Amino acid sequence: MKNKISIVKIGGSIIDDEQGLDSFLIGFAKIKHPKILVHGGGKIATKLNEELGINTVMNDGRRITSKESLDNVTMVYAGLINKNIVSKLQGNNCNAIGLSGADANSILATKRPPEPIDFGWVGDVKKINTSIIQMFVSNNMSPIYCAISHDGNGQLLNTNADTIASEIAIAMSELYETELVYCFEKKGVLEDINDENSVIEIVDSIKYTQLKQKKIIHQGMLPKMENCFHALNNNVGRVIIGNSEAINNSELCTTLTL
Amino acid sequence: MKNKISIVKIGGSIIDDEQGLDSFLIGFAKIKHPKILVHGGGKIATKLNEELGINTVMNDGRRITSKESLDNVTMVYAGLINKNIVSKLQGNNCNAIGLSGADANSILATKRPPEPIDFGWVGDVKKINTSIIQMFVSNNMSPIYCAISHDGNGQLLNTNADTIASEIAIAMSELYETELVYCFEKKGVLEDINDENSVIEIVDSIKYTQLKQKKIIHQGMLPKMENCFHALNNNVGRVIIGNSEAINNSELCTTLTL
Repeated sequence: MKNKISIVKIGGSIIDDEQGLDSFLIGFAKIKHPKILVHGGGKIATKLNEELGINTVMNDGRRITSKESLDNVTMVYAGLINKNIVSKLQGNNCNAIGLSGADANSILATKRPPEPIDFGWVGDVKKINTSIIQMFVSNNMSPIYCAISHDGNGQLLNTNADTIASEIAIAMSELYETELVYCFEKKGVLEDINDENSVIEIVDSIKYTQLKQKKIIHQGMLPKMENCFHALNNNVGRVIIGNSEAINNSELCTTLTL
Repeated sequence: MKNKISIVKIGGSIIDDEQGLDSFLIGFAKIKHPKILVHGGGKIATKLNEELGINTVMNDGRRITSKESLDNVTMVYAGLINKNIVSKLQGNNCNAIGLSGADANSILATKRPPEPIDFGWVGDVKKINTSIIQMFVSNNMSPIYCAISHDGNGQLLNTNADTIASEIAIAMSELYETELVYCFEKKGVLEDINDENSVIEIVDSIKYTQLKQKKIIHQGMLPKMENCFHALNNNVGRVIIGNSEAINNSELCTTLTL
């Protein structure tokens, strides 16, 4: 039987709330089996862009990444957020190691083609280096990946954190019994957006189609849900969407199934 | 016989010059034995402080680190500079892994006491985690350390890069035949500051005392030289000061001896 591993992705709403982040990290540190964290940090990068007078241009919720914008997300994701998370986890007895996809060539990506929309320095995941990640994990380290990858030729690339999480989960499922957890500010997928407790406990493909038709799953959630089903279709054993408490199995959340 | 390892520290003058940095990294990637790079990045952090309206306060060439200033050096050192160096080294077939001292608990430090001068969030190195560094090196990775460490209780600390380099060299000399190289803009310690070619090829303790008395070794160089002799006094086999070409043994430089 394979050992269990959890790949947890946290959204900007958790990162932006200092107390919320601290309490999430205490929970993450408590996970006893091997674990990997993936984070972005969109709002802080947007704030830094504002302070430096750089325009933040979004298209369908995805950042168009100019050279200056890439420098800023590299500072914010790989520097400020990643190292603060790592030092806090170390303070909670979790042997965290903060990485970008360039580090140890963990995540290789390809620059997105400029047609139909030129997203600038944005990369799509090409290859996860499972053997290096396994090396970290088997040496009792918890890799903390920020949403920056590289092309292998010296270029950093801004890369969607939801996708990095699902691709790592898929790659690691060769070696481990893999669980993928998307943590955000809500308790799960909600039947009624105005009722925090209307969590749909199980979403399978049929339910997903219904929710899309009823427009209950709205624009921002669609790519996340696509990542979830992509993972389930590629050997990831368990996919969950919930708030911080979902990682310790103590709270209501949404479980996705095929 | 022990295997050889080089610990190379690059100064701000190399980091600030894009072409100079590229050519340094090509040389660094060519080193065939295990190697570790240590960098700061003072000028870029000072520039970011200016752009964000934060005062940069220095005392004797050392940065007084407020909370805002710590956030900025964390962004610049651990994010922008570290990840650009790593991706460029990866592009030169060097399996670089960029780290702060918090990552994998590599470098533990103690916050400097606030008396006689309160340096703020500045740390002095307490312990180098040699076994984790050896693990990276023996897995064919080249650790790239930025000048950020942690206190083990969740706090990042701004830490002098020259000192990190000498402390890593001292710690690794238990396991390796260790060489410590300080790279900066000059070819070595100069007899005449106005003559780039007046490199003093060997500086021993007696010569060092003479150079201090004649004030040829000036204020900024003193802590660097102290780090060099501290390393030599603690089993580091070879200590060199020179420009980028010193790492490939192809150029005039200063060798320090006891």
